[in-house]
Amino acid sequence: MDSLTIIPITGIGEIGVGSDLATIIADAGDLQDGDVLVVTQKIVSKAENMLVEVDPTNPLSHKPLVEQESVRILRRRGELIISETKHGFVCANAGIDLSNVEHGQAALLPEDSDRSARRIRNGIKGKAGIDVAVIISDTFGRPWRRGLTDVAIGCSGILPIADLRGTADSYGRELQVTEVCIVDELASAAELVMGKSTGIPVAIVRGVDPAWFGEGSVRDDIVRDPADDLFR
Amino acid sequence: MDSLTIIPITGIGEIGVGSDLATIIADAGDLQDGDVLVVTQKIVSKAENMLVEVDPTNPLSHKPLVEQESVRILRRRGELIISETKHGFVCANAGIDLSNVEHGQAALLPEDSDRSARRIRNGIKGKAGIDVAVIISDTFGRPWRRGLTDVAIGCSGILPIADLRGTADSYGRELQVTEVCIVDELASAAELVMGKSTGIPVAIVRGVDPAWFGEGSVRDDIVRDPADDLFR
Repeated sequence: MDSLTIIPITGIGEIGVGSDLATIIADAGDLQDGDVLVVTQKIVSKAENMLVEVDPTNPLSHKPLVEQESVRILRRRGELIISETKHGFVCANAGIDLSNVEHGQAALLPEDSDRSARRIRNGIKGKAGIDVAVIISDTFGRPWRRGLTDVAIGCSGILPIADLRGTADSYGRELQVTEVCIVDELASAAELVMGKSTGIPVAIVRGVDPAWFGEGSVRDDIVRDPADDLFR
Repeated sequence: MDSLTIIPITGIGEIGVGSDLATIIADAGDLQDGDVLVVTQKIVSKAENMLVEVDPTNPLSHKPLVEQESVRILRRRGELIISETKHGFVCANAGIDLSNVEHGQAALLPEDSDRSARRIRNGIKGKAGIDVAVIISDTFGRPWRRGLTDVAIGCSGILPIADLRGTADSYGRELQVTEVCIVDELASAAELVMGKSTGIPVAIVRGVDPAWFGEGSVRDDIVRDPADDLFR
């Protein structure tokens, strides 16, 4: 196994409605074939005009949107709602937030983050001729453990799960099930160079195992079928 | 923000009961001050003799151990048990597994993985004079999302959570709560160069923000108080 490098892309600047993310990222980053780009949800939502006007004087004005974007409420405590979004994600406040957008606006999740990832990937291939994989990331909490981590909400060009079932362990015995969610691990790795407030919305992960490239979807491959889920 | 590099440490070889992990890691890796070492639980459990004999002819012979190592069963489905371990972790089969150990053995989690991390850190400081932070990692599933990711079960010399509460976002507005679990993100990042069966039990994360170094404990800072937990 070789080393991985995680490189923040600086200088992306302000993203507005209709911004061409593929061109902006290709111009700002020194991209190479085989790079995995991790792009934070917020700039995708802005470029795709997933912004909604909210009352800037009311810090809870986005709460009706949370219910609207949810298909199932799992838990409520005070102002906190943990729900399943229409995309299948289980997260706080349906992934809607007010940080890093203008006052009076709330950013919803992209309609289809796998498609968003595919567009950026195809755009970079078309404009710069560079083959990259793309992950759209967002910051989610989780039960049982404090703190938030970044996870993948969309991807293109990378297998969401590296399936090590049947690979021999170092004792030569067959591993029974080890399905590693590499897109979530890559999203978490990228977050480490982004911070939450430093204006770095994209990072490159360079050196990823070429065997991990391929077609897959967060929505199809990572979101667990509610029927298989012990906690829904 | 600068780049991060994730470097697998190869050549660690077989770890046995009583192996001096600090010396072995310092000898195998080209360590530098400020490195974060991510050490997989399995070699810590072996070095600390957390191995238990099980019937090698019965693939379910470790199941009574799961109940013994648990303080609360959250869910059962077939052979799968999701429980809270005596350390406070919620995971499958109390973190006990049979992979990468000899036939007829099962590896339990270390008694106190924060202490294990501290011992390795202090040992490397004492023997090689190098200041590193140490994370002990394990591979856990999670609700709602398929696939496993590596998380921290112990740490020393690094703040488990980078608390961005009150830091201004890129619009100058105060972020309300963004507590990033950097030890889990670092564990996930490290897993990307380890694989599950390649015999690489330690990785270096180089380039971590010096502001993240400090004292903390996974058990005290990451394990969520059951009273605060909406899913227990």
